[in-house]
Amino acid sequence: MTSSDTPLRVAIILIGNELLSGKIQDENGHYATRRLRALGASVTRVSIIPDVQADIVDEVQRCLRSNDVVITSGGVGPTHDDITLECIAEALGVDCYLEPQLEALINRYFGDRVTPAHMRMATIPRGSALLEAGENTWPIVHTESVYVLPGVPEIFRAKFEALAERLRRGQWYLRSIYLNVDEGAIAALLLELERDHGVSIGSYPKWRGTDYRVRVTVEARSPDQVNAAIAEAAQQLDPTVIVRVDDPLGTTD
Amino acid sequence: MTSSDTPLRVAIILIGNELLSGKIQDENGHYATRRLRALGASVTRVSIIPDVQADIVDEVQRCLRSNDVVITSGGVGPTHDDITLECIAEALGVDCYLEPQLEALINRYFGDRVTPAHMRMATIPRGSALLEAGENTWPIVHTESVYVLPGVPEIFRAKFEALAERLRRGQWYLRSIYLNVDEGAIAALLLELERDHGVSIGSYPKWRGTDYRVRVTVEARSPDQVNAAIAEAAQQLDPTVIVRVDDPLGTTD
Repeated sequence: MTSSDTPLRVAIILIGNELLSGKIQDENGHYATRRLRALGASVTRVSIIPDVQADIVDEVQRCLRSNDVVITSGGVGPTHDDITLECIAEALGVDCYLEPQLEALINRYFGDRVTPAHMRMATIPRGSALLEAGENTWPIVHTESVYVLPGVPEIFRAKFEALAERLRRGQWYLRSIYLNVDEGAIAALLLELERDHGVSIGSYPKWRGTDYRVRVTVEARSPDQVNAAIAEAAQQLDPTVIVRVDDPLGTTD
Repeated sequence: MTSSDTPLRVAIILIGNELLSGKIQDENGHYATRRLRALGASVTRVSIIPDVQADIVDEVQRCLRSNDVVITSGGVGPTHDDITLECIAEALGVDCYLEPQLEALINRYFGDRVTPAHMRMATIPRGSALLEAGENTWPIVHTESVYVLPGVPEIFRAKFEALAERLRRGQWYLRSIYLNVDEGAIAALLLELERDHGVSIGSYPKWRGTDYRVRVTVEARSPDQVNAAIAEAAQQLDPTVIVRVDDPLGTTD
């Protein structure tokens, strides 16, 4: 049992040479990051790695060591560079097997045109579970804490939404305070607020097109923490530098 | 001395909690990836990590082990979460010192308003070098093979371009072949081409809005390799599935 005050730790691994050769700009990492934050999670890292067995195995093992959940994107098609499923099996120390339900789906879809390459998509790590994915007939393969999603953005998003509620735990609260001051002048105060109130502070300077010079964000798992830190900031700052404070309290979404 | 036939291996580390909380979508990773490819490099990984000391130190060390160059983005401002420079020093096993040229720049810029927080920006790993950055007065700090760039996209891009030519080595060549066929039917051929010709093959299915179903890309360090692999593909494929072949040879840019 984990309290909802402890955010779910999630790592995202984006797999594909095309992302590292600049051919394709990833969309899935930011999509999942933003949605996971709204679901109360902490995304601890996003890695873009190539279709290389050693890299994938190593990254999955490394991410599993310090996260509750790992989400992968890409490398689940029929071609020679689609090796995500076999690498996850290796990372977990299990073998792969031809899963009958997936095999039947592939045979139904491809009929006479089925090739051994297609069957690689149905060859999954021993111990995997299949999650229904709403409208889509192809299920989400997951194994222990690893969810294996396809790289094509529209399918990635549909699959992500199909499993999103399983990942919801607690909530982040956020308020911002907008200041007309140089970041360097408030650095000590921000550190103090973070330490005294157990909140996460972000500091975002802007140079153009805004009526403020720094936006300071205050985030925590409880509204009280956020409000207390904002109140202290407002008290300690020179009132003339405060442009405005976000009110009421928002969530990170 | 390294031959231009061996691509420079580069890892990119994007540092900042704001990238992992979904507040800001990274732009620098894709920019650098695309430009590095055009400069002939192999980007081996892109990591988005938080402003956490252990994570940054670990990632820098890990990337240095298997790359020629590491580029970092972010974490170089004056606030408490700007810890990139001190983490790089720790990763390299050196200490930090207040660099006189940077100290003078900061004093000149901030004058009376300078704070100890500002001086953190001038406190850099022992053994660092300063690279002129064209129009910008603030130089690029680099140390051994680590180039430390700021996270603000417009400044990141300007700094990147100021050092780009130092990273040029050799060139990638690319041709594409567009097919009306299911990926699964050509998986074995693609693997064979990759093995026989020492080329990198990419396979990109499309479902909508194109006159082909799969784009196959063939890339290598020499035009001859690419042309030989394309010729063999054209010979082995059923001519009726070939929609067209890119001609002439292009670079990856």
